[in-house]
Amino acid sequence: MQKNRISMAVIRRLPKYHRYLKELLEKDVKRISSKELSEIIGFTASQIRQDLNNFGGFGQQGYGYNVEELFYEIGKILGLNRTYNTVIIGAGNLGQALANYVSFEKFGFALKGLFDINPKMIGLKIRDIEIYDMDELEEFIIKNNIEIAYICTNRESAQVTAERMMDCNIKAIWNFAPVDIKVREGVVVENVHLIENLFTLSYFLNNNEE
Amino acid sequence: MQKNRISMAVIRRLPKYHRYLKELLEKDVKRISSKELSEIIGFTASQIRQDLNNFGGFGQQGYGYNVEELFYEIGKILGLNRTYNTVIIGAGNLGQALANYVSFEKFGFALKGLFDINPKMIGLKIRDIEIYDMDELEEFIIKNNIEIAYICTNRESAQVTAERMMDCNIKAIWNFAPVDIKVREGVVVENVHLIENLFTLSYFLNNNEE
Repeated sequence: MQKNRISMAVIRRLPKYHRYLKELLEKDVKRISSKELSEIIGFTASQIRQDLNNFGGFGQQGYGYNVEELFYEIGKILGLNRTYNTVIIGAGNLGQALANYVSFEKFGFALKGLFDINPKMIGLKIRDIEIYDMDELEEFIIKNNIEIAYICTNRESAQVTAERMMDCNIKAIWNFAPVDIKVREGVVVENVHLIENLFTLSYFLNNNEE
Repeated sequence: MQKNRISMAVIRRLPKYHRYLKELLEKDVKRISSKELSEIIGFTASQIRQDLNNFGGFGQQGYGYNVEELFYEIGKILGLNRTYNTVIIGAGNLGQALANYVSFEKFGFALKGLFDINPKMIGLKIRDIEIYDMDELEEFIIKNNIEIAYICTNRESAQVTAERMMDCNIKAIWNFAPVDIKVREGVVVENVHLIENLFTLSYFLNNNEE
């Protein structure tokens, strides 16, 4: 495996392979050729072979890919062969929505707590998971070995909250606040800006002749 | 303007320019050089000049960009100089969270109604916007000139719902269901798969030496 030579573009396609392979597994499909996979996933067969070759290549000439094996291997590459303790910062609408996404749990992302500054929210539970006071954040992160935090605060609080968690050695931040969080070396971040996706949609809506 | 030659990559960067320019405007910054913009946005100055040249180029040698003008022009390119009537299909946790995103409204995406199949939800309101029965979907879309639908249903209902709305000439679908919606010619779609973003994060968490 030549980890360091895998491009960002390939990495970003892996979750999509994972999703389609899961669907195939659910339909009890045992094996699939790159051509058949191409038809359902929308990448070209040659792109698929090239992508999967990055990881040693799981296909066999004349047989295609073993669906279960490929699903498992891609999951392993994505780090889905273990569990992660997570917290949500900001128990507003989006924080609550994310707390209710049980599919995150199914893939090993175990939500341990939510945090908020609103006294009315503190002590309430979502799916048996408690909302804690922000004052307890540092202690909770260290004690519960939290690796990933989903930030659902407003723009002003996002970076400050991230700093507090990085002081406690959090490893990954999934940020939904409308700001790009800056992280320290050794910490990874994904900034999700939903509204930017909506703007792209409105661009295409107005330029659909292309 | 040579619309047809603008690459997807450029289009997908425009919302980010728009967000940073908005912040500059809020800080009352009047003009900015590509170098300064580069420092805050993280793209290279040459990339910024190249990107913005696609749209005729708004900068002036030795002056830089007029922040307000550039913000306005990029907004116009993204289609933000008009309003869109929208609906949300599926008033569960995510649907409700999106309904509460007032920033969508501020940029012209006017939510006219939510739809659900759960009888307990129907008639309830979120921010004064009513949740309607799915049986009323077609009539509502036509009557209210709905252009964009946010799909927040489960996987099974997503495509079927999209078909019903395409029969009523909906123009754009913003899909959050864990499936890639297939659209007809003339309809645009953005499929948002939050969990795939989380998988990318866990990949980077495990491969952070790169």
